[in-house]
Amino acid sequence: MISILLVGKGNVATHLHNAFLSVDNIVFTQISSRKLEHIPKADITIIAVSDDAIAEVSSKIKNTFVVHTSGACSINELKNTTKKGVFYMLQTFSKEKKVDFNEVPFCIETENDKDYKLLEELAKSIGKKIYNVNSKQRKALHVAAVFVNNFTNHLYKIGNDICKEYNVPFEVLQPLIKETALKIRTLSPEKAQTGPAIRNDKKTIKNHLDLLNKEQQKIYKILTKSIKKSIK
Amino acid sequence: MISILLVGKGNVATHLHNAFLSVDNIVFTQISSRKLEHIPKADITIIAVSDDAIAEVSSKIKNTFVVHTSGACSINELKNTTKKGVFYMLQTFSKEKKVDFNEVPFCIETENDKDYKLLEELAKSIGKKIYNVNSKQRKALHVAAVFVNNFTNHLYKIGNDICKEYNVPFEVLQPLIKETALKIRTLSPEKAQTGPAIRNDKKTIKNHLDLLNKEQQKIYKILTKSIKKSIK
Repeated sequence: MISILLVGKGNVATHLHNAFLSVDNIVFTQISSRKLEHIPKADITIIAVSDDAIAEVSSKIKNTFVVHTSGACSINELKNTTKKGVFYMLQTFSKEKKVDFNEVPFCIETENDKDYKLLEELAKSIGKKIYNVNSKQRKALHVAAVFVNNFTNHLYKIGNDICKEYNVPFEVLQPLIKETALKIRTLSPEKAQTGPAIRNDKKTIKNHLDLLNKEQQKIYKILTKSIKKSIK
Repeated sequence: MISILLVGKGNVATHLHNAFLSVDNIVFTQISSRKLEHIPKADITIIAVSDDAIAEVSSKIKNTFVVHTSGACSINELKNTTKKGVFYMLQTFSKEKKVDFNEVPFCIETENDKDYKLLEELAKSIGKKIYNVNSKQRKALHVAAVFVNNFTNHLYKIGNDICKEYNVPFEVLQPLIKETALKIRTLSPEKAQTGPAIRNDKKTIKNHLDLLNKEQQKIYKILTKSIKKSIK
């Protein structure tokens, strides 16, 4: 039996709460980060609060083992005087959408092996993919995630804008978007690259630029240039 | 029964060939674009050659109905003197990977309704998603596809480069990549946008830039700026 104290009421905390509900060997309590006066003891205290609040919230906690859930923060952002760890789930969480935890990579960092085994046991009780990731690696993953999630989604937005302007349903692009994302499971992104930039097809590139607004042109040009450069 | 003449031996032609093989009411012949002297008659002649070759190849064909398969070319790129059409499949085709034609959007353009019905019947015999798309719309789709496929794949490459540099397996990012692509089936890209740019989280943006090389920084900055601008 593992006892968990979950601090926070946001997106990540809510999804973790729901996941823990269905696990037999976990007892857990969830509290708001604003009510830290008399908190219950627990084997693992999980702080799922905004990055800026981690230091202050953790400084008030006396429990033996405190972890945060942030991809951007180092383990030393925790200011409790007891043991520290990180329990980072690398996935995009939306309030409205159910999360399949079997598909969520758990990136774990601790100060010693015993704590690692405990966090690993916790992760295994709700998920399957577990990685040992230190603070430097986690920061790199976090910025890589901005490229493959935030920026990619913005390219989808531009695709959607173009469709709207030329009166074509965006859904026509959905199968391509899905295939692009799945293709790199079997092919490296280098090998999967196609299109006018990698072929240096100047005529098509010119035709494309003619269809775009200034903002879109800037992004088209810089990414085209970067693709060309990537050819070894 | 529909008779098809397929001109070309490339990627698209090969996948079409394989799809037609399993359809009972299609008889088809495939020939190379270099052997156009004595070509067989057919209800539909499909030219699946490179964009630059469409004009020349089509000018040599006397069959009654000739279509090309290019997203970037107008219907008038065809130089046959008989009827014209376009049979564009908006998907990324790799030689090594089998295509699920039920997931391929067929974008059809013709000069009249009767021809449209014939191309529609052909598309329905191998697929399910059929769209009536004119030359202007198709060009817009083609450039939108560059954003959601070519450029997105390049962002995956950058994510992969960062992982390599910091010694983390790229597979940790795969679930996020998949979820990002599928999320926009239920949420618009505007609503799905998350991350430091949309939150204007300057501290995280600065930390991210510190981890990147110059080339990556340029792309990070321009996309972050564009996301900020997109907030209405």
